Amino acid sequence: MPELRKDPITGGWVIIATDRARRPSDFFRERVVLKGAGFCPFCPGNESKTPPEILAYRPASDRGQRNAPGWSLRVIPNKFPALGIEGELNRQAEGMFDKMNGVGAHEVVIETPIHGETLATMPVKQVEDVLWAFRDRILDLKQDRRFKYILVFKNHGEAAGASLEHPHSQLVALPILPKQVVEELEGSRRYFANKERCIFCDIIQQEMESRVRVAAENQDFVAISPYASRFPFETWILPKRHESAFENSASHVYENLARMLRSLLLKCVHLLDNPAYNFMLHTSPIQENANDYYHWHLEIIPKLTKTAGFEWGTGFYINPTPPEEAAKFLREAAIEDAQTA
Amino acid sequence: MPELRKDPITGGWVIIATDRARRPSDFFRERVVLKGAGFCPFCPGNESKTPPEILAYRPASDRGQRNAPGWSLRVIPNKFPALGIEGELNRQAEGMFDKMNGVGAHEVVIETPIHGETLATMPVKQVEDVLWAFRDRILDLKQDRRFKYILVFKNHGEAAGASLEHPHSQLVALPILPKQVVEELEGSRRYFANKERCIFCDIIQQEMESRVRVAAENQDFVAISPYASRFPFETWILPKRHESAFENSASHVYENLARMLRSLLLKCVHLLDNPAYNFMLHTSPIQENANDYYHWHLEIIPKLTKTAGFEWGTGFYINPTPPEEAAKFLREAAIEDAQTA
Repeated sequence: MPELRKDPITGGWVIIATDRARRPSDFFRERVVLKGAGFCPFCPGNESKTPPEILAYRPASDRGQRNAPGWSLRVIPNKFPALGIEGELNRQAEGMFDKMNGVGAHEVVIETPIHGETLATMPVKQVEDVLWAFRDRILDLKQDRRFKYILVFKNHGEAAGASLEHPHSQLVALPILPKQVVEELEGSRRYFANKERCIFCDIIQQEMESRVRVAAENQDFVAISPYASRFPFETWILPKRHESAFENSASHVYENLARMLRSLLLKCVHLLDNPAYNFMLHTSPIQENANDYYHWHLEIIPKLTKTAGFEWGTGFYINPTPPEEAAKFLREAAIEDAQTA
Repeated sequence: MPELRKDPITGGWVIIATDRARRPSDFFRERVVLKGAGFCPFCPGNESKTPPEILAYRPASDRGQRNAPGWSLRVIPNKFPALGIEGELNRQAEGMFDKMNGVGAHEVVIETPIHGETLATMPVKQVEDVLWAFRDRILDLKQDRRFKYILVFKNHGEAAGASLEHPHSQLVALPILPKQVVEELEGSRRYFANKERCIFCDIIQQEMESRVRVAAENQDFVAISPYASRFPFETWILPKRHESAFENSASHVYENLARMLRSLLLKCVHLLDNPAYNFMLHTSPIQENANDYYHWHLEIIPKLTKTAGFEWGTGFYINPTPPEEAAKFLREAAIEDAQTA
């Protein structure tokens, strides 16, 4: 008998298949294959083919340079932005409908100068720099009072929506709160109103006691396969210590997140044959002060099932891999990796 | 400047690209190609390879037959159901989490005996029979008090999640309300509490006055590209007359829905090069009486963008085709089709 499980935060139900559960080898394979051919605007030497950089990390000897090789990480405006950076919101009605100008920022973090590298294989320090870049950009974009939320995400592989293969992630600053964010905030607030405790802190405590859905753990983080996972091998990385906003963390937190993220992605590469994936940072709205009810975290979703079908339209998910099994596979995956040991 | 538009029912925002809008010819092509090869369990003669039929439409001369050729439409339990039909819900806690048995029905409507047929090309009467089958099954499943909602949907083409190519749609009877349904119901109730009018009726009235987002119209139905469309060429077919539940409609309603659905799908085939698509019936929960605030409708979503990327995880949609343009393309598409003229 399959199981219906309720997401404790948003209240949505998912179906977890228990018979015929799909193991890592059962999934349709659309592995990410490096093509590497052709012109890449993100490679060193092609800086003039992108909009001018907003931020770059360079060795100290190189600090004066801009838009020229020598960088180890580079942040640029998206050449084809989903939103425009100039102008006012100009909220208005269109009959019974509501609209505003699509004002926002859309930036690309070029994670490394090396075209064929990935977050799973680059040095931990380089992954950590990607996280520092997220933080630096969030702190800067926060100053713009038009924005309410910054969405940080990565599409890895064509099947996950990446149009360029050079390793990169994205930031979108929005003048509104996306629906999923609103749902999580409202769910967490409701729980806090009732219990005076953070729901994520309670989940972490229960998961760390039972251990069945713990995929990995280090000093600052625990990675779990959430109880009501919508997707096979969906994995959340949560800071053990309560913190509502990603950008407020201490520096060892970024270091330990880099270690855990890299190690989990490397395990996915081995276990799931280099799948496409998305990750999304879930953090508090930028204009809010630190709060007691919301707890930032990173959600990783490998793209294993060929399509999401009608799930978008219904909010009705069927997950063929129980999270307990996914966590066990991830926990027990032995990878040789001196860096994250 | 792109536009941010608010879905008047659920309150979610979408980004509508206005520059560089993508026209039908701009989309990635993953056209549905009929393979036809190999064994098909849904073809006549193979009735013993599926679970025994729940319902079949046959000519009067053939009424005594069961699980044998001669049918024009056949409903069977899904051989690999997402939910189990037997047993009680047995709601229970697992620490702070909530679960219940995955009790429900999962049925397949085999829409025609002809393997290579589609809803866009079969006779209108056959499409109408598919709608009658939805109604017949809803009325039957409604008797089971364990169920709260019946999800009726179709995945057409591999890219939309179809695993068999013989034309079929699906019904899933659920003991819970899916999240998207809850959101629409709550949004509609909120609007009704405020205005004492159905929000869908108001949308229909505004759209029929302005006409810019009207894709098609007949005696009983209007098809619109919704103001805050999440996907390019997303199309909703709404009954003009208020009705909360699909299964309560008069018989001319099914006939006119069949005409409109077939004609829109045929236009999609021509305009968008035979795309994969999903459709979902949005209707009231089955244990509710007819109500004044919710308005059933059918949502069609052609699968045109290669992936949804991180949209699931964020509820943040970017639509590269303004609905006004999608509606114009659909409205003006000239197709030779004596049947739906």
